[in-house]
Amino acid sequence: MHFTCMFIICHCPQIKLLIQICHWDIHIYNCHKTQQSLLSSSSGYSNYRGVLNWCVVMLVLSNARLFLENLLKYGVLVDPVQVVSLFLKDPYSWPAACLVIVSNVFIVVALYTERQLSKGSFSERVGFLVHFVNLAVMLTFPPAVVLVLPSVTPVGGAFALGIYTILFLKLYSYKDVNLWCRELSTVKARKLVRSVSCEHKVCYPGNLTIRDMYYFVFAPTLCYELNFPRSPEIRMSFLLRRLFEMWMIPIIQSSMKPLEVPNHLLWLMFFYWFFHSSMNFTAELLRFGDRQFYKDWWNSESVTYFWQNWNIPVHKWCLRHFYKPLLRKGFSKIASQSAVFFLSAFFHEYLVSVPLRMFRLWAFTGMMAQLPLAWFVGRFLRGNYGNAAVWISIIIGQPFAVLMYVHDYYVMHHKQEDV
Amino acid sequence: MHFTCMFIICHCPQIKLLIQICHWDIHIYNCHKTQQSLLSSSSGYSNYRGVLNWCVVMLVLSNARLFLENLLKYGVLVDPVQVVSLFLKDPYSWPAACLVIVSNVFIVVALYTERQLSKGSFSERVGFLVHFVNLAVMLTFPPAVVLVLPSVTPVGGAFALGIYTILFLKLYSYKDVNLWCRELSTVKARKLVRSVSCEHKVCYPGNLTIRDMYYFVFAPTLCYELNFPRSPEIRMSFLLRRLFEMWMIPIIQSSMKPLEVPNHLLWLMFFYWFFHSSMNFTAELLRFGDRQFYKDWWNSESVTYFWQNWNIPVHKWCLRHFYKPLLRKGFSKIASQSAVFFLSAFFHEYLVSVPLRMFRLWAFTGMMAQLPLAWFVGRFLRGNYGNAAVWISIIIGQPFAVLMYVHDYYVMHHKQEDV
Repeated sequence: MHFTCMFIICHCPQIKLLIQICHWDIHIYNCHKTQQSLLSSSSGYSNYRGVLNWCVVMLVLSNARLFLENLLKYGVLVDPVQVVSLFLKDPYSWPAACLVIVSNVFIVVALYTERQLSKGSFSERVGFLVHFVNLAVMLTFPPAVVLVLPSVTPVGGAFALGIYTILFLKLYSYKDVNLWCRELSTVKARKLVRSVSCEHKVCYPGNLTIRDMYYFVFAPTLCYELNFPRSPEIRMSFLLRRLFEMWMIPIIQSSMKPLEVPNHLLWLMFFYWFFHSSMNFTAELLRFGDRQFYKDWWNSESVTYFWQNWNIPVHKWCLRHFYKPLLRKGFSKIASQSAVFFLSAFFHEYLVSVPLRMFRLWAFTGMMAQLPLAWFVGRFLRGNYGNAAVWISIIIGQPFAVLMYVHDYYVMHHKQEDV
Repeated sequence: MHFTCMFIICHCPQIKLLIQICHWDIHIYNCHKTQQSLLSSSSGYSNYRGVLNWCVVMLVLSNARLFLENLLKYGVLVDPVQVVSLFLKDPYSWPAACLVIVSNVFIVVALYTERQLSKGSFSERVGFLVHFVNLAVMLTFPPAVVLVLPSVTPVGGAFALGIYTILFLKLYSYKDVNLWCRELSTVKARKLVRSVSCEHKVCYPGNLTIRDMYYFVFAPTLCYELNFPRSPEIRMSFLLRRLFEMWMIPIIQSSMKPLEVPNHLLWLMFFYWFFHSSMNFTAELLRFGDRQFYKDWWNSESVTYFWQNWNIPVHKWCLRHFYKPLLRKGFSKIASQSAVFFLSAFFHEYLVSVPLRMFRLWAFTGMMAQLPLAWFVGRFLRGNYGNAAVWISIIIGQPFAVLMYVHDYYVMHHKQEDV
């Protein structure tokens, strides 16, 4: 049957021609079909990985000359041996570094308190009090040092305060999670919990070790967990690529003249350096599995989306230790959201005002201005227009706030020189 | 059964607790999971639509001052009424425009020849000869005019030659497709073809009308087809958005000082203006369905991919009317590919040398240099590195070729002034 059919096709000229025509029709006659251009928003296309590479190439090429000059002139930007030896010679002229070293005291106090609590030597009330004092001192002692000691530079001050703020958030999370563990295990189900969820895993009192504490302190996250997901091994090529970036980006940045290059570009490079290169480097070194340090904030179509996605460690912390507890206490969504923005505004102001020794509330105002902006963008703009609005607010808003401080700082120090 | 089960769960404290713990475990204890950062190439993530918007916003903002100045100073860049009245007053001082008007002669000759061929008044041989002469004159007459008449400016000359080159490619395609139609329909299957594929469609001799010809001439494609895919209607908002872009981009471009802004940026803006805004505008107006004027060349990981995807109308033409016919004649793939590059190099040189009245072969050399470059990139570079190499070749190679011409043009005209 099959063969007969073939025979008919091959020997009937009309059908053969028809097949040939159909073939031609598809391959030569019709070379067009209805379709949209990729750049039209209706095409649904979104793969612009190449545009990102373009930005990097443009950045490197446009700074290539200065970059090479700096490389030949200074070589590696920071010589670690020299820094350490300088520090050891005269530690008191490095107050910021001293502050960072002192921070270990607070870590040890938090661990000690939790150990006493787990043994029952501290009542919950005493434990809470010790934690409260410990955290309060962490927030007030470093700014006091920065404001009193004139030898602290703005950069050194900002660095030390940044470290203390990160530690504050980490130890707050540490206290919370250990409390949750106790709340669960005080019930008679302690054995049950162990038998169910503790195979090959660390269980509550077992996590209160120096090693576990310092792993959390160095891990690129602000949220404590008894069993962090771990990656199977350290990938050397990944580690070296991130190390290369960590070393390259500051060199490229230093080749740009500040206030000439858009300040915004420096922020973008800082973002990549900190949130991609440095955090991934640390995570790879510690075999820390969760590398979600940012989400796709570059596609933000609303201000809220931007704030929820550009800094995942802080966002996660706010959600877990501030927003959700507020909700559980019966606050409304709007009130809790505003409280998060208020907290964020406080820390922004804290990290800028104290090192510069100027209290101007620009950073605070800038953060609080996000609330009406978020309302406006969410209400009136969608899609690519919303995205463009978010970009404009980042490109214009941020340098504006920085410029206010630079202006005031300049005026203040210029006046002093005149006197 | 179901109810009993519920009852047991609710009243057995151990199981209830277990469920509660599992719930907590998921929602509070474990807030991390193993995952990659989006910017890591291993994440497979590629949605960077926002980065494209960033580029546009940066472009507009960085030129906002100059852009507003120009807008206030000149208003709409080109006043069409004024241009037409100027032209009508003294047509001979607008030789480029005259050349474009004369091009209609060639269109009519091509249509006339095809009509005679379809009726059998011309033999295939005569038809071929007339087409050959018509196409040959199209390629030689405009450069002769440009070279002889000193009143043709470089811009006017390049514009006229561009129009003639596009028409040349279109009429070549027109001739080919009509020939294919005759080759098919000379066989006795003419009726069969009609009955099968010609419902609601135009069939061979029926397409030889002035209306069909001019639709093809204005359609944003170089490949002729008897039945182009059509879009159902003209979307006014789409049309107006493209019109707005067509008007905006030249204003933004004119605000940039040439040779100060990277030449490459001007090329990118020209690409968007021509291949996205203008072509989509024309297509929407003509209800032309196929909007694939470019593919995702920004993600090119090899030089070949770039040349195959940045200019789809020309690529399609080369494939259909040059590359495939060569293959059918028995040439090898490599030879045919090289021939395409050679043809492309010829037209690049033709479109630059003639209007500038300088024969330097820089454009030709630049195009031919793509062959070894393509080999090198394809051999040694992959992924993002290949993409970066393609971008560098575009960013550096293109302005380099332009600069060679600018340099030579300047030297030539400076010398003449000195004399």
